[in-house]
Amino acid sequence: MFYSEDLTYLMIPGPVEIHPRVYQAMNEHVFGHRTAHFRTILQQATEGIQKVLGTVNPVAIMAGSGTLGLHAALSNVLRKGDEVLCFVNGKFSERQADIVSAFGIEPIIKEIPYGEPVLPEQVKEALETHPDVAITTVCHNETSTGVLSPLKEISEALKGSNSLLSADGITSAAGDYVLMDDWGVDLFVSGSQKCFGLPPGLAFISHSPKADERMNDPNGFPTYYDSIPLYSAGIKKGWDAPFTPPIGLVYGLLESLNIMFEEGLENRIKRHHKMGEAFRSAFLAMGLSLLAKENYHSNTVTTALLPEGVNSSEFSRVVREMGILIAGGQGHLKGKIFRVGHMNLVGPREVLMTVSVIEHALRKVGYEFTPGSGVTAASDVLM
Amino acid sequence: MFYSEDLTYLMIPGPVEIHPRVYQAMNEHVFGHRTAHFRTILQQATEGIQKVLGTVNPVAIMAGSGTLGLHAALSNVLRKGDEVLCFVNGKFSERQADIVSAFGIEPIIKEIPYGEPVLPEQVKEALETHPDVAITTVCHNETSTGVLSPLKEISEALKGSNSLLSADGITSAAGDYVLMDDWGVDLFVSGSQKCFGLPPGLAFISHSPKADERMNDPNGFPTYYDSIPLYSAGIKKGWDAPFTPPIGLVYGLLESLNIMFEEGLENRIKRHHKMGEAFRSAFLAMGLSLLAKENYHSNTVTTALLPEGVNSSEFSRVVREMGILIAGGQGHLKGKIFRVGHMNLVGPREVLMTVSVIEHALRKVGYEFTPGSGVTAASDVLM
Repeated sequence: MFYSEDLTYLMIPGPVEIHPRVYQAMNEHVFGHRTAHFRTILQQATEGIQKVLGTVNPVAIMAGSGTLGLHAALSNVLRKGDEVLCFVNGKFSERQADIVSAFGIEPIIKEIPYGEPVLPEQVKEALETHPDVAITTVCHNETSTGVLSPLKEISEALKGSNSLLSADGITSAAGDYVLMDDWGVDLFVSGSQKCFGLPPGLAFISHSPKADERMNDPNGFPTYYDSIPLYSAGIKKGWDAPFTPPIGLVYGLLESLNIMFEEGLENRIKRHHKMGEAFRSAFLAMGLSLLAKENYHSNTVTTALLPEGVNSSEFSRVVREMGILIAGGQGHLKGKIFRVGHMNLVGPREVLMTVSVIEHALRKVGYEFTPGSGVTAASDVLM
Repeated sequence: MFYSEDLTYLMIPGPVEIHPRVYQAMNEHVFGHRTAHFRTILQQATEGIQKVLGTVNPVAIMAGSGTLGLHAALSNVLRKGDEVLCFVNGKFSERQADIVSAFGIEPIIKEIPYGEPVLPEQVKEALETHPDVAITTVCHNETSTGVLSPLKEISEALKGSNSLLSADGITSAAGDYVLMDDWGVDLFVSGSQKCFGLPPGLAFISHSPKADERMNDPNGFPTYYDSIPLYSAGIKKGWDAPFTPPIGLVYGLLESLNIMFEEGLENRIKRHHKMGEAFRSAFLAMGLSLLAKENYHSNTVTTALLPEGVNSSEFSRVVREMGILIAGGQGHLKGKIFRVGHMNLVGPREVLMTVSVIEHALRKVGYEFTPGSGVTAASDVLM
């Protein structure tokens, strides 16, 4: 096979391809973090993330996976005996429920079929049965199914209750609209390795004053590495990181944010929307069905059902041999769908490349359709 | 436009996209060149080039453009009063004639229509009129027209004469078969920035014992920086470079050669042939005509005629906006053809990407053809 790992193009829903300028920034000379130089970089990077999330709330930048961000968002606000409402419409929304369980709290799980979004009606209905819910968790962009839930409307549905809203925005932020303050989201979590355009290693947790009120509560759970107040105190002390941050990644973060603002955040989001539209149009033209319910399609990951008789691993293998890595289904969707991530640097060229490679692979594994139909449909959208 | 210079994919006939391992190697710590460490690297790199060129002849690695290589090949063997026969079937074969002229020698120029190869019959015919020719120049792979001339047969046609054969192999070596010794080529010149997979900056001149006989001749022209004997003497002294070599480029050269031999030189050449076939098949399916005469197509650069009514610069602009850089025509072919380079890292993915982008651009500028036909034809070849 010609394409080695270092030549394979990532069209999975993260990690993503990284801008050469970000690689360069990450390789700059590592400097001390207790210095004015680094504090300025940390401040600028944090302000960039705030812009991306549409918030004036503080952002804790923690060294770890996106899951550390979800863990910290919950560990800092949970109290023993809390009622926690978890909407589960895919593998990633399940994770917040798992974290709640790990703290010995049985979450109230509202299961929603894979492919469907969390809807405000469902939130209202759940609150009627459970009016004392302290925390509600949702996944904004469910990466396992390619579904975008209407976070603004979900947040509105929570108004009047005392519940905090904790949102997993790991694959939405920097690729789709996020207006944390306007929408009234209390905890918004993202990570470096998706639309933020970095390698994995950083988690971002933005937290509202309402969320802060619950922190440092004597009835709360112990936190240390994941203590949001420690990060907030560091920022107040003058952009001090409580623990040694991955300095190279922070350099890269600032450069990636610079690149985002050069393109323009609005342009960037519109590009992600357009690329999503091109993929959906291509797959439909090829006779495939999309997993996500219409009007709730993610703009950063597209999921299509594999046609009857197509062997999933054979299909993925051919795509991989053609130099592109895409993702399969998770859980009960394993072998039934494929997922294409279109985050960060994915533009028209990558869409046409991926669609033509997927066409080639489907032809090779014996699926019958009009060759060229997918590429032509994508080209139409990109016109 | 989304694709900045550092995101644009190079599908021009050089410079080419560079393997990440080569970038890494070029950034290694610069070491002194008068050391055993560097001498070993220079020796290994030279032995790698010899394998690629199919020769046991020495190779002078000079710091400069490919044109320095052509200049040195000729300046070292030319003598005042020489008859020099130059076959010109494109812009690059013209260059050797220009160099000869610069030394005050009027070359005997045999013009061959653009798109056609140099054929052994033409060489024999020219030798009949000019039996005392001292040097014959040809371009193995004429990058301006996408034509590969049969170098082996050309060399055979020269047998019996006293003429040296000087071949420009800048875009053939490492992408197509070169057997310098078997074919009896006296001077074979290549450069770093084409199929060798490096940035520009290095020229390679391999020279036969017959060529060496003409060097250091009192009737020859003065040489210094371009003195092949100085390089040969350095090698004999223990892999000493006469002038400071671009150390990073030499590190990269060795790594690029390592990558070539990992793939296998034969596999690499077959891949270049296959990608050329896929491009030709795609363009023909889209109703385009190829410039190169059948059976003499280059395997590293494909040239197609722009359809009537298609504005060349508008077409190139759309392709460029889609993130791919291709080349236009040179000289009288300006505005009439486009050229796609498929060298070094170009595999099935890049072919499908480029063909689908070219399809998109041709649709956008109003050319009528069956959309998807090019991609499907390429996919058929890659099956």
